[in-house]
Amino acid sequence: MSTNIPLLEAFKQTKYQLVGHGNRNLQVLKEAFEHMDGEQESDMYGTGNLIEEFQSKMAAFLGKESAVFFPSGTMAQQIALRIWCDRKELKKVAYHPLCHLEIHEEDGIKELHNIEPILLADKNRVIELEDIVGMTEDVSCILLELPQREIGGQLPSYETLEAISVYCREKGIKLHLDGARLYEITPYYQKTAAEICSLFDSVYVSFYKGIGGVAGAILAGERDFTEESRVWKKRHGGDLISLYPYIVSADYYFNKRSQNMAEYYEGSKELATLFNECEGVSTLPLEPVSNMFHVHFQLSKETIESILVKIYEETGIGFTHYVRETGEESCYYEVSIGDRYATIPKENLKIAFQKLSEKMKEEVSQ
Amino acid sequence: MSTNIPLLEAFKQTKYQLVGHGNRNLQVLKEAFEHMDGEQESDMYGTGNLIEEFQSKMAAFLGKESAVFFPSGTMAQQIALRIWCDRKELKKVAYHPLCHLEIHEEDGIKELHNIEPILLADKNRVIELEDIVGMTEDVSCILLELPQREIGGQLPSYETLEAISVYCREKGIKLHLDGARLYEITPYYQKTAAEICSLFDSVYVSFYKGIGGVAGAILAGERDFTEESRVWKKRHGGDLISLYPYIVSADYYFNKRSQNMAEYYEGSKELATLFNECEGVSTLPLEPVSNMFHVHFQLSKETIESILVKIYEETGIGFTHYVRETGEESCYYEVSIGDRYATIPKENLKIAFQKLSEKMKEEVSQ
Repeated sequence: MSTNIPLLEAFKQTKYQLVGHGNRNLQVLKEAFEHMDGEQESDMYGTGNLIEEFQSKMAAFLGKESAVFFPSGTMAQQIALRIWCDRKELKKVAYHPLCHLEIHEEDGIKELHNIEPILLADKNRVIELEDIVGMTEDVSCILLELPQREIGGQLPSYETLEAISVYCREKGIKLHLDGARLYEITPYYQKTAAEICSLFDSVYVSFYKGIGGVAGAILAGERDFTEESRVWKKRHGGDLISLYPYIVSADYYFNKRSQNMAEYYEGSKELATLFNECEGVSTLPLEPVSNMFHVHFQLSKETIESILVKIYEETGIGFTHYVRETGEESCYYEVSIGDRYATIPKENLKIAFQKLSEKMKEEVSQ
Repeated sequence: MSTNIPLLEAFKQTKYQLVGHGNRNLQVLKEAFEHMDGEQESDMYGTGNLIEEFQSKMAAFLGKESAVFFPSGTMAQQIALRIWCDRKELKKVAYHPLCHLEIHEEDGIKELHNIEPILLADKNRVIELEDIVGMTEDVSCILLELPQREIGGQLPSYETLEAISVYCREKGIKLHLDGARLYEITPYYQKTAAEICSLFDSVYVSFYKGIGGVAGAILAGERDFTEESRVWKKRHGGDLISLYPYIVSADYYFNKRSQNMAEYYEGSKELATLFNECEGVSTLPLEPVSNMFHVHFQLSKETIESILVKIYEETGIGFTHYVRETGEESCYYEVSIGDRYATIPKENLKIAFQKLSEKMKEEVSQ
């Protein structure tokens, strides 16, 4: 089985796509600015109505006293951990082995801030209270990522979160929320963002995952914390003269999509079921707890790519633009449900999964 | 003498303004994107045609092997100095006492990178070869800011630059150019940007001063240097999923304005002459060497504000939106000539300066 068309190219030619909101192209910005008044003044180095109003809005949404807009979550989270370390005069934090800071930031937390991370839990599961209680070293801060993206977006139970929060407050350990996908977990927990954030001392949220904006992040907490974060934002080179391109688009897509998270979540569960009905395919988690999950195949990357390209060509439905090898005979990709999923006619979806099921059965049984 | 209208408000109501290109409002972005194809793909974490083509264009313009786009100069320059320090295993650099890193970045270079700066020259003049030859300590890198903004945008002679470059190469000291206003000095030196940059190992340029873009910076040098800078860019939280809002606008306004620097420079010299003809007013430098200079008044901030508000109301010409106190009976503001200056009818300009001259004479002689 072979094909000459790469998966990415085949994906781009499909009529429908299972994942995401749409293409990440310049139209995303243009749409957000279309109805904005050109006379509106830019923010200026973190000041001005445009940035201040959005920060206040997000602080209220997250139930925190104050919020600061950052160009990136990488910057916001390193700074949050640095502040908590400085307060306790202890440059140690704890987080999951697959934490964004540990695997996607070129060790910025260590190289720029000299902070030593302690890795909690096995990398294949979420952090539980026992992992924290069992720590042999003191730390200034624990970071929880909800959902844990690199293992398909898994979540601890809400009771576990509450217990961790109580424990950390007792022990004088600050609790920071990596809420890159915070909006996306509110339907599963049946809690508001503010309720979830109340368990944490500081929280970061993103505007280009579930929200689908251009880029940008918010860091929220008590005012003395966010004021200190502004100083570090300048040190990091993040206090740009104008952040409005990100703020305007963050606000626009927040208004457009923050109410849709339950719909994305339902789509995610429905889609995971379809995958799990196919031989040699399983989702992680088996039942999603947000708009995201991972799809694992028990066949080689090359075989799966061939199968997918054929399905794309035969049905016009694109599943993914990539798959990543996990072994000689296994691979996976990540699903994030957005606006696109609901636009796919159910009949077409059914046909695409019939084909996937048939082709998988054929290949697995070989 | 008193007025009830603040200077900023009066300035905003004027028909003409002596400084800048225009208001920093959302229209700056909208104009840049108006003719862009919405289907064009975003850059993705530093890759993609949109960012790569602009980086290549700027590398060629600056005569360097490679260039990397950064969200800010603060980030780009700290990283440049860090790389040079790591190469020499010596965390010491030298720069002017009024260097941006020393006074505008909350000590990021020290707090994030543990780099110790040695301050060269008296703060009221530019760095000369003798200051460098006279250094008693070795350093990894010397940063020169051309023009030296905080003293009105002064420049050393080109021969001095050449001599410093030769000396640093002999001594194994890297030379970095803070070229936030590099385009603006090419008419005075009668050199291309690439010719000036050839004296330096690394260079940063900005896109929102003379160019008038939204924000953003380029760091350029040899490829191994810029590749290393990408790693630090990620550590700093500057490797955003999408930097295109800044890149598209940087490119648009670079194309629109980089050819206008000689015109701005001529305007600057003309305007400085008009100021220097008024009693109690002088410019620094006396004859500008770029599109910028400082205007110093030998009267209190309050008196000057009153005088300016009256002139704005009487002539419709706005000089500045602020003045800064330097003593009880002295104050100043910064001039940057941009697109606006050429739009002012010469007759109106003449009247405004006649009024300034009269009012200054009246007040100085009191």
